[in-house]
Amino acid sequence: MTTGTGAGDPRIQQLARLAVEVGANVQPGQVVSVGARPGQEDLARAIASAAYERGARFVDLAWFDPHVKLARLRHAADDTLEYVPPWYGQRALGLGELAAATIALAGPTAPGLFDDVDPVRAGRDRLPSVREGIAVLMEAKINWTVVPCPNPAWAGVVFPDLPPDEALERLWTQIAHICRLDEPDPAAAWRARGDELAASAARLDERRLTALRFRGPGTDLTVGLLPGSTWVGGIDHRRDGLEHLPNIPTEEVFTTPDPLRTEGVVTSTRPLDLGGTVVEGLRVRFEGGRAVEITADAGAETLRARVAVDEGGTRLGEVALVDGSGRIGPLGTVFYDTLLDENAASHIALGAGYPKGAPGEDPGRINDSQIHIDFMIGGPDVTVTGVAHDGTESPVLSGGAWM
Amino acid sequence: MTTGTGAGDPRIQQLARLAVEVGANVQPGQVVSVGARPGQEDLARAIASAAYERGARFVDLAWFDPHVKLARLRHAADDTLEYVPPWYGQRALGLGELAAATIALAGPTAPGLFDDVDPVRAGRDRLPSVREGIAVLMEAKINWTVVPCPNPAWAGVVFPDLPPDEALERLWTQIAHICRLDEPDPAAAWRARGDELAASAARLDERRLTALRFRGPGTDLTVGLLPGSTWVGGIDHRRDGLEHLPNIPTEEVFTTPDPLRTEGVVTSTRPLDLGGTVVEGLRVRFEGGRAVEITADAGAETLRARVAVDEGGTRLGEVALVDGSGRIGPLGTVFYDTLLDENAASHIALGAGYPKGAPGEDPGRINDSQIHIDFMIGGPDVTVTGVAHDGTESPVLSGGAWM
Repeated sequence: MTTGTGAGDPRIQQLARLAVEVGANVQPGQVVSVGARPGQEDLARAIASAAYERGARFVDLAWFDPHVKLARLRHAADDTLEYVPPWYGQRALGLGELAAATIALAGPTAPGLFDDVDPVRAGRDRLPSVREGIAVLMEAKINWTVVPCPNPAWAGVVFPDLPPDEALERLWTQIAHICRLDEPDPAAAWRARGDELAASAARLDERRLTALRFRGPGTDLTVGLLPGSTWVGGIDHRRDGLEHLPNIPTEEVFTTPDPLRTEGVVTSTRPLDLGGTVVEGLRVRFEGGRAVEITADAGAETLRARVAVDEGGTRLGEVALVDGSGRIGPLGTVFYDTLLDENAASHIALGAGYPKGAPGEDPGRINDSQIHIDFMIGGPDVTVTGVAHDGTESPVLSGGAWM
Repeated sequence: MTTGTGAGDPRIQQLARLAVEVGANVQPGQVVSVGARPGQEDLARAIASAAYERGARFVDLAWFDPHVKLARLRHAADDTLEYVPPWYGQRALGLGELAAATIALAGPTAPGLFDDVDPVRAGRDRLPSVREGIAVLMEAKINWTVVPCPNPAWAGVVFPDLPPDEALERLWTQIAHICRLDEPDPAAAWRARGDELAASAARLDERRLTALRFRGPGTDLTVGLLPGSTWVGGIDHRRDGLEHLPNIPTEEVFTTPDPLRTEGVVTSTRPLDLGGTVVEGLRVRFEGGRAVEITADAGAETLRARVAVDEGGTRLGEVALVDGSGRIGPLGTVFYDTLLDENAASHIALGAGYPKGAPGEDPGRINDSQIHIDFMIGGPDVTVTGVAHDGTESPVLSGGAWM
C-alpha cells in the first residue's frame, strides 16, 4: 500500500494547526520558533504556514543537523565539546524577552547515528539543548509545545519488521490517534483531556502526600516531595496567563519533588533516546536524593556524562504519574521517543524542576540543573503508593488505574 | 548514465576541503559559520567535517529554508516583512567579535519558488541577508568565502534540456573545472590565479583612472572612481592580516567607485537571481550616481523594492572587471547564480562599497548601504575604456582581453 505521507498529506496540515492553535496557542504578532531536524521539513513548513496564517510576526526555524554534530563528536578536540557560541544563549533569552512561542518537533530522525561515538564525548555536547533555553521555559516566559513528527527513519525503528511504506503509515496512524487527529474536533478533545488531567492533579493535591513509593520488578523507589509540591496536568499558562499545552500528546500529571529525598533503586520500563544514543535496561540507585549508581544494558556512559554536568544533574526534578486511560499505553508500542513514551508510563526526570510543580516553595529547594532528562519507570507491574505525613501508605496507581 | 553525486562523491570532499583550507582558510580554534539551504546538506556536512579535522572549535550551521520564507511572503502582514529578530544581528556581530570564519554555499536551490509572490512584498524581506552581516564582512573582521554547491534543482535550470542525472553531472563537471578541482593541486592553482589577478589590479592602479566607461548594446555608462579607489583581486586579508579567498571561483578585479558619479544607461548581459526571483533584461539609467530608472523584462519590481531600502541602495558600491582568461566565460553557460555569472563578466553592484577598494578614502564617501547586489554588464560586445584626469580615454578591456 502507499502512504500518502508526502507534503500533501492532510494529517501534516492537521498536526501543524493543532501545534499552532492548541499546543503553542500562537498569538497575532508573535515571534515563533520552530525547532526541527532533517527529515522534519514538511511539518516544519506546514507549521510556519499555519503560524503566519494565524498572524505571527516572524517564524524562526531553529534547525539542528545531527550529522554536523557527528562531525564534531568525531573530530573536535575534547576540551571544546562543551563550547556553545554566545548567540545560542542570546537567541533563547531573546525568545523569552519577546514572550515568543516555541514549537519543537520530536521523534528520532537519525537513529543509531552516534552508535560509534565515544559516549563520554557524546555526553559533553548537549546541543541542541542550551541552559538559557531551559531557564526561559522553566520561568514560563514563553508559550511552548512539543509535538511528534512522523518520519521514515523513526518508523523503521518502531516497526522494524514492516516494509518502509507500511511502517511509516502505521506510525502516522498511531500518532494521529494519539494526537486525537481522528476526533471530529481535535482541539476540543484536547481541552476535555486537559480538564481530566487537571481534575486528577487536584485529587492528588487533596491527599497532601509527603512522598511517593514505586514498587515493581527491579524497582523500590521512594521519591520525597516538597512541602510546596503541587500536582500539575493539562493546560499550562505563560507567566502572564496565556494558555498553552506544552506537550501534544500529554497524559501525565506531574509535580516537582525534593531533590534531597529520593531513596532506593529504580529500573526503567522503556528505552530512553538521548538524541541518538538509546539507553536500555537503565537501573539507577539513589542515596540522599543523589543518583549514586547508574548502570544499563546500553548507553549508560552517555547518560552518566550528561548528568555529570552539575550537582542537580544527578538529582530528581520531576515525578509524573500516567494512568492507563491515555491513548499511548494501550497501543503497546515502544516509540523510542520521550514525548510519547513518557506519556505511556509514569516517569521521573533527572535535572531541573519545574517551578510550577512547587509554586509556593523556596526557589532554593527546587533543582536548578542545566539538564532535564525524563525516563520511564511505570507500567502495569509497577504499583505507586502515597506516603502521608504520619508515615502510612495508601495506593495511588495500581494496574494502571487511579486508586 | 549515473552521476555518483551522492554524499560519497569525492568531488564533494574536494570542494569542502578547498572551501575550508583555501577559501576561508580556517584556523585551529576558530568558530566557523556554514550558510546553507535545503539541497546543500551533503556539502555543508563535508565542510563541517573538514573544518573540525582542521581544528575548528565549533561549526555553526546557518540554515535558511526558502519554503519558510515563502510562507511568510504569502501570509504575513505587510508591515512585518522587514522585521528581523534581534538574535540575527547578534549572531552576525558575534561572528565578527570572535574573528570567526564563514563559508556560504551559493547556487539556486528552489528556482521559481517565489514566482507567484508579490514582488514588492518579496523585496521587503531581505533575509537571509542582515545588515550586521554585511558590515562585519566589509570591516574585514572575518575570514570568509563563498563556494558553489551543485544540486539537482540548479542543474535543471542551467541544463533544462538534459535528463536530470545528466544535467547534474554536467553541472558538477563544469563547476569542478571552474573551481580547478581538476588541477593536480587545486590550492596551488588558486594561489597562482590569485597572483595573476593581483598583478592585473596593480597594473590598473598604475593608470590612476578617474572613471571607467562601458560601451556596448544598450549600454553607455560612465562610472566615476574616488581619489582613493584601488583595484583589488585574488587573495584578501582579514583586518589582522589572515589570508582568505572570498570567492571560489574568483576571476575579477574590482574597486570601490564614487557613489555620486555614475552617469548613463546600462543593460545587463546575464540574468540575476535575487534568491528565487530572476531578473532578466535589466536596464538601469543613472543620473548623478543614482539609479533613477530600473526596468527589466522580468523581476524589475523585486529589484526596485530591494534597492529602495536606503539611499545607498540606488547607488553603486562596486565595479569589477573580468577578462576572458577565466574559466567561466569560455564555457558559455548561464548559471543563474551571481557567484559564477559575475566571474564570467564585468559587473557593477548596487549598495555597499568594500572599504578595501578605497583604503585611504574618507569613509563618508564610500557607499554604506545595507544591501549589495551585483549584476553583470560585461561581455565580448562590451568595451571598457579608462578615463584619465585630463579627460582622455584609453582602452582597458576589449573583446575580453586586457589592453
